[in-house]
Amino acid sequence: MAFPPDATLSDAGEFGLIRALVDLFPQGEQVLVGPGDDAAVLRVRHGHVVVSTDLMVEGRHFRREWADAADVGHRAAAQNLSDVNAMGGRATSLTVGLAAPADLPVQWALDFARGFAEECSLVGASVVGGDLTRAEEIVIAVTVLGSCTQAPVLRSGARPGDVLALRGRQGWAAGGLTVLGRGFRSPRKLVEAYRRPEPPYDAGPEAAEAGATAMIDVSDGLLADAGHVAADSGVAIDVRTAAFEIPEPLQAVAAALGAEPMQFILGGGDDHALLATFPDVASVPAGWSVIGAVTEGEGVTVDGAAYDGPTGWTHF
Amino acid sequence: MAFPPDATLSDAGEFGLIRALVDLFPQGEQVLVGPGDDAAVLRVRHGHVVVSTDLMVEGRHFRREWADAADVGHRAAAQNLSDVNAMGGRATSLTVGLAAPADLPVQWALDFARGFAEECSLVGASVVGGDLTRAEEIVIAVTVLGSCTQAPVLRSGARPGDVLALRGRQGWAAGGLTVLGRGFRSPRKLVEAYRRPEPPYDAGPEAAEAGATAMIDVSDGLLADAGHVAADSGVAIDVRTAAFEIPEPLQAVAAALGAEPMQFILGGGDDHALLATFPDVASVPAGWSVIGAVTEGEGVTVDGAAYDGPTGWTHF
Repeated sequence: MAFPPDATLSDAGEFGLIRALVDLFPQGEQVLVGPGDDAAVLRVRHGHVVVSTDLMVEGRHFRREWADAADVGHRAAAQNLSDVNAMGGRATSLTVGLAAPADLPVQWALDFARGFAEECSLVGASVVGGDLTRAEEIVIAVTVLGSCTQAPVLRSGARPGDVLALRGRQGWAAGGLTVLGRGFRSPRKLVEAYRRPEPPYDAGPEAAEAGATAMIDVSDGLLADAGHVAADSGVAIDVRTAAFEIPEPLQAVAAALGAEPMQFILGGGDDHALLATFPDVASVPAGWSVIGAVTEGEGVTVDGAAYDGPTGWTHF
Repeated sequence: MAFPPDATLSDAGEFGLIRALVDLFPQGEQVLVGPGDDAAVLRVRHGHVVVSTDLMVEGRHFRREWADAADVGHRAAAQNLSDVNAMGGRATSLTVGLAAPADLPVQWALDFARGFAEECSLVGASVVGGDLTRAEEIVIAVTVLGSCTQAPVLRSGARPGDVLALRGRQGWAAGGLTVLGRGFRSPRKLVEAYRRPEPPYDAGPEAAEAGATAMIDVSDGLLADAGHVAADSGVAIDVRTAAFEIPEPLQAVAAALGAEPMQFILGGGDDHALLATFPDVASVPAGWSVIGAVTEGEGVTVDGAAYDGPTGWTHF
């Protein structure tokens, strides 16, 4: 279906727009019934399903002037796919709800859906259902389903003596978000890292297979998420800053803003890196960096001491 | 956790409130990992999963002055559980996302969750995950998972010669919504029907077992949803008004408003009745009413003629 270039959701009408959106979502072979019925029906291979859900609100989790619609689609999908990754699983299918103002351009919704579908295709997952409704502001609600070929890796399995390891870019998106917030569009690499995170999708199942004892995706901030693992596992975690090489663009931004570059790494959460604990250094798979240690006790320290910088953010 | 009686979401803080909400959601034996990790993990019995998602926006799908928080919770759950019912399935687990203003009373969120959990308990389903974030207005995003013990019943299976049957209250909620919209609180039975729909949860699996050829839950409006079945099945459907007994409170409201009571029945969508087609009258299970017939052709007629009243609503 073709819409006039300046058509709004209100012009397009609910059912016409839904048809156009559904056309953007190819269905994998695990989908027995795709979008359009009261519910989708999915074939399930293993004896269990992993499920997670996230909300994104305009002005809070994204801004239309900082990221185009396709970017927002990529980010919304990545954030949810990453949750399955952090269980050691692979995403199979997603639903996406879009609440949006009636004057939202149809093109925005189509581009969002296209970006969302592209990100899902990276892991072979299908968009099997959704909902579309009018609201004052854009709210995006995503639920992801997945499966694990071995026991899911929880946040609660870290044990004293384990090593802490990280996989994926960390701090880049926080740097990008910071410069966007100050009205800049560069360094380009950081801005792009914010707009289109690149979660290490294969690394979750690999870590599970390698014997990871606990795992989480970094979404609240590295120290905040290490804190979730520490609390749920009943252990203490020490993060060693010497383990991090500070990438050049982060150094540049920190210098320009008079900030400490390590803040982006310790506090940033939008890259969807994976943080996991392993029984020993030998079991840490290739591509991961050992960044700390698990000990008896509670809480998170940085280089053996309490950290007094920002450790993430809260929603209220 | 206890909150001061006038605490808002902002006062409570995200993590404290999440803990309090999670406490309201008992976990069934199919839940291997409940709320609190990157994802929940569910045991799946049959080789497939049914999934559906819905959004509810304050001011559009509910008003705080028309229904209390527990009622909104019941309705949000019912609407989604009903989608699984309409596939002939049974819901097993749900996720619920709540985007809400910072000044929303904590008590509202807790009462909402309590109502939501109560409705889920009617079918033995568990709330296994969710998300909580700040927004300008309340948006509720629910995803439901379920399973069928036989092939799911789609909208597309109606065949000429089938009979059309309905199960559950129809038109009551629309009557209740209408009187609330005019500032009244009675007839009480209609208002209650709107606030707490009573979807016939067992009737979906029963219909599937009895050989229903197509099924849908009435959420857009009886004629609109019959239209979805007709379009997806490539058939025509005729609804016979003589099949309906108009309940006394609907007669009273129609008389008071100078309206036609059949409008509530043909156009109403908030009761979550089930509409299904069966090969013949003999296969229609007890409790269902035969209300029409499936023939060759396309579209929906009422008593053999085009209907010119309202047939439902659209979102944009």
